[in-house]
Amino acid sequence: MADPSSFASPEQFGTKHLHLKLDVDFSRRVISASTSLTVRSLQDCLCQLTFDTKDLTIKEVSVNGQTAKFQLGASHRFKGTPLEITLPFPLARGQEVIVQISSETSPKSSALQWLNPEQTAGKTHPYLFSQCQATHCRTIIPCQDTPSVKFTYYSQVSVPKELVALMSALRDGHIPDPEDCSRKIYRFKQNVPIPSYLIALVVGALEGRKIGPRTTVWTEKEFLDASAYEFAETETMLQKAEDLAGPYVWEQYDLLVLPPSFPYGGMENPCLTFATPTVLAGDRSLAGVIAHEISHSWTGNLVTNRTWEHFWLNEGHTVYLERRIDGLLHGENLRQLLALGGWKELQNSVNTFGASNVLTNLVPNLHEVDVDEAFSSVPYEKGFALLYHLEQLLGGPDVFLGFLKAYIQRFAYKTVTTDDWKAFLYSYFKDKTDILDKVDWKGWMHTPGMPPVQPKYDMTLANACTALANKWIEAKESDLSSFSSEDLKDLSSYQRTEFLTQLLLHEPLPVSHVKRMQEVYIFNDVKNSEIRFRDLYNFDKARDEAISTFKKNRSSMHPVTEMLVAKDLHLSS
Amino acid sequence: MADPSSFASPEQFGTKHLHLKLDVDFSRRVISASTSLTVRSLQDCLCQLTFDTKDLTIKEVSVNGQTAKFQLGASHRFKGTPLEITLPFPLARGQEVIVQISSETSPKSSALQWLNPEQTAGKTHPYLFSQCQATHCRTIIPCQDTPSVKFTYYSQVSVPKELVALMSALRDGHIPDPEDCSRKIYRFKQNVPIPSYLIALVVGALEGRKIGPRTTVWTEKEFLDASAYEFAETETMLQKAEDLAGPYVWEQYDLLVLPPSFPYGGMENPCLTFATPTVLAGDRSLAGVIAHEISHSWTGNLVTNRTWEHFWLNEGHTVYLERRIDGLLHGENLRQLLALGGWKELQNSVNTFGASNVLTNLVPNLHEVDVDEAFSSVPYEKGFALLYHLEQLLGGPDVFLGFLKAYIQRFAYKTVTTDDWKAFLYSYFKDKTDILDKVDWKGWMHTPGMPPVQPKYDMTLANACTALANKWIEAKESDLSSFSSEDLKDLSSYQRTEFLTQLLLHEPLPVSHVKRMQEVYIFNDVKNSEIRFRDLYNFDKARDEAISTFKKNRSSMHPVTEMLVAKDLHLSS
Repeated sequence: MADPSSFASPEQFGTKHLHLKLDVDFSRRVISASTSLTVRSLQDCLCQLTFDTKDLTIKEVSVNGQTAKFQLGASHRFKGTPLEITLPFPLARGQEVIVQISSETSPKSSALQWLNPEQTAGKTHPYLFSQCQATHCRTIIPCQDTPSVKFTYYSQVSVPKELVALMSALRDGHIPDPEDCSRKIYRFKQNVPIPSYLIALVVGALEGRKIGPRTTVWTEKEFLDASAYEFAETETMLQKAEDLAGPYVWEQYDLLVLPPSFPYGGMENPCLTFATPTVLAGDRSLAGVIAHEISHSWTGNLVTNRTWEHFWLNEGHTVYLERRIDGLLHGENLRQLLALGGWKELQNSVNTFGASNVLTNLVPNLHEVDVDEAFSSVPYEKGFALLYHLEQLLGGPDVFLGFLKAYIQRFAYKTVTTDDWKAFLYSYFKDKTDILDKVDWKGWMHTPGMPPVQPKYDMTLANACTALANKWIEAKESDLSSFSSEDLKDLSSYQRTEFLTQLLLHEPLPVSHVKRMQEVYIFNDVKNSEIRFRDLYNFDKARDEAISTFKKNRSSMHPVTEMLVAKDLHLSS
Repeated sequence: MADPSSFASPEQFGTKHLHLKLDVDFSRRVISASTSLTVRSLQDCLCQLTFDTKDLTIKEVSVNGQTAKFQLGASHRFKGTPLEITLPFPLARGQEVIVQISSETSPKSSALQWLNPEQTAGKTHPYLFSQCQATHCRTIIPCQDTPSVKFTYYSQVSVPKELVALMSALRDGHIPDPEDCSRKIYRFKQNVPIPSYLIALVVGALEGRKIGPRTTVWTEKEFLDASAYEFAETETMLQKAEDLAGPYVWEQYDLLVLPPSFPYGGMENPCLTFATPTVLAGDRSLAGVIAHEISHSWTGNLVTNRTWEHFWLNEGHTVYLERRIDGLLHGENLRQLLALGGWKELQNSVNTFGASNVLTNLVPNLHEVDVDEAFSSVPYEKGFALLYHLEQLLGGPDVFLGFLKAYIQRFAYKTVTTDDWKAFLYSYFKDKTDILDKVDWKGWMHTPGMPPVQPKYDMTLANACTALANKWIEAKESDLSSFSSEDLKDLSSYQRTEFLTQLLLHEPLPVSHVKRMQEVYIFNDVKNSEIRFRDLYNFDKARDEAISTFKKNRSSMHPVTEMLVAKDLHLSS
């Protein structure tokens, strides 16, 4: 099956291992790379290999130590430039060779954000971080930049010795750079096969503090205390996730809190989740972002969508697991509230894209479509809604969790398509195919707009929010004095967010109302950026903002639920 | 951790993939091999690689296409001869290279059985089969012959065109041999990483018949009908095993029924279980062997003992799963009977080795001990007894199955030691460590003889056997007429075996009794070889026989429960 977002041909050959040597040059804002790829041929008489690149300078290529001819093909609007290597000898099916490529990035590499010292918390040292999802790894190194190919990696990264480098892998020590005494080499190993979009790098004045048996939180020292406090429950969440999804196989679960300019809530880089500092709510109320990233350790990172057309397999299952964790930690009622919130989120996306826009299909066609342009909350929330609907049809949370565990076990370390998922669903529920046959699969998967069926939700927690929201909507000037801080006493921070969301879905309140609300609810004092954000901005404005930032930054965007916590969104408006 | 049974150093480097070209020469009884190993360095400045070989001729070695120097070290009594390769350039940690070795086997290769046409059922064509477990792969190709190293493989095998080749892998078609028109090349791919002992090859006049969605049974045509009948329930068993252990990840589960000279009950070669034709009982009553081999698809083949000292992790868990399958198919009472039978089997092994023999430790020390010499039913039955004891301590079958599934998921595609297993047990049952702390771990694992505690068994089915056995033991000549074929009416074939086992554990019966038993129970008509075997031979004699055959054949022997069904044992005596 071809990947419409890549030039590399995973049906002809597969990358099994990367051995990387990276040299990070802050003055020129480039990374020089030596990339050794262990490549296995999947066909006889294979004479050429095509890799993805974008804005890379290719210097030299060798195959098993022999110099090889190469050329760059025509550049594509968003896919980049294919690197075509002529093999010095043909490969037989099943045969492996080592392809070594020397290359250099461009300062405009779309995966890399180079920050001046002023853009950091410490203001002293420069900072670099990467964001490869979905198709930007090709702007760092030549690779098969498709999630259908998974490989292990070992990396050594040379950086100025006063800085620390981290990657999405286990730390494997550091040594002085033998070639430059002003630099250090940090080393990393990732022994679990991962797709290219999970390669990640950060370099900065980082400090680490151990906050759990398998977790160190890394950040600039200015954020260290707050980060250690905010993420103190990480190990508990990991254990809940393991109860749900099975053992955690990545050994280490470190967290990186980035400088304020990180434009996402979180990114599930293996062994090292990237998080925005705006999740530092001060009250651990935004830990849901971490529950989401932790859940990706199974769905996404272990079981991976084969192409971005099947992105809902990554995100729908991850939202499902995230909400199961929330349910375990804070009660089933909260899960119901969050599930309902997701439905509304989906409705917003459908409204924004338009109900007949095929990009709102659960499984969109991405032929000649830039993955970044297609991004929305649809794969997250339509995906979640389908799984939640199936949970209700097939016997409830326990029964459905049995399926999810088996699905993870079956496809761990592999990649999946929607057809694989569906075939496995049918084989797991072989005694319930009559129920499955009644599901409107075409409606759910290949039809734009809202799903054909809405799942059922327990409304207990939501009703309390609705009641309060309606009270504000219906209030006359003269009623405003009846509001007090007592109104919020029994509402959790999730419910407060829901309350604000409901208000934002209505016509804007009169200024008098908003002033009174600020007065009695003092949201400006709340550190929780999601509550502040929803309070300050109209939802659609937030979305426009997000999409424009997204296009400016070119990068695939994380879901609204994650995006909304991005500080730069509500500070820069 | 070093493997005392191997010269290869898995702490210095690991094999990730084999690309094999085998040429099978029946006239000279040798296999010529080109073995390309993708090897990853685990340390810096690695200058030498050591592989295991035994009775191999090494012709040529190259590394990434460059000729490399090599030498054979001193031969060891049972470990064979280390092959030391000097790398033409040093390797860095995480770096991979392709090592290609040309070699040839000796006709006395201990992994290979070359049969004349007369030794086959068809009498027309020669036949070749391999048995690599535990440490005999090194007699076919140079390799890291330690279960701590797992790799994928792709293979092409040239054989006379009238024969069929199969390997422990997915079939990947066949083509005429371009170099010899009298020959064909069969191709295979194994995409799941396996240890060397699971490489397997068979070449003969084989025919296949599809008997299930993922199962073809292969055998000489003389056995084809009987085999297809006997193994008709394979898919049902696979599904039961999946219910217990999680999804089957090997895609194909083929069965090979070997010629009568195959000295084992079964061997769990991945994608292609090897079975003796003596399991063709005609009534599917020996399908337990298949339940055992199927179970190895999870415990052993997916989760693999890191060295042979931890063999109980392979076999104890597999016997546990096998008996759970038997329980699902035939009732919990049968599982209880089989569990009790296992305890007796263990008692026999302990009696044979001697209760103070350290080889009866669950975790023996194999430093300078030939794995084949250490083989017994101890890892199977002491291992099972420990797991069954834990099942009873920790909350029963359902609770314990949760652990087993999580253990499989955690260590799938990996290797494990007893310490890994125990640490995971403690982490899974973190709320029951008080119970675990009371287990006499030293007694179970590092002490010879019978375990410190005997688990409890439901005796319903066993008591019926004991009653009948006692009736025979206590019978006087004059009582013999009271026995009739009605005695067996309500006894399953498992119970009949148990009845005979009990008799064999006593002083031999008088000849008059045996004659009468043959008369009324007509065991000679029973095809089930286990019943016939137990009927004809004294148990200890069987064991002596087994051990002598074992030493003659040099090979690691499968457990008594499997061994007893080996036709050559009870026909050649």
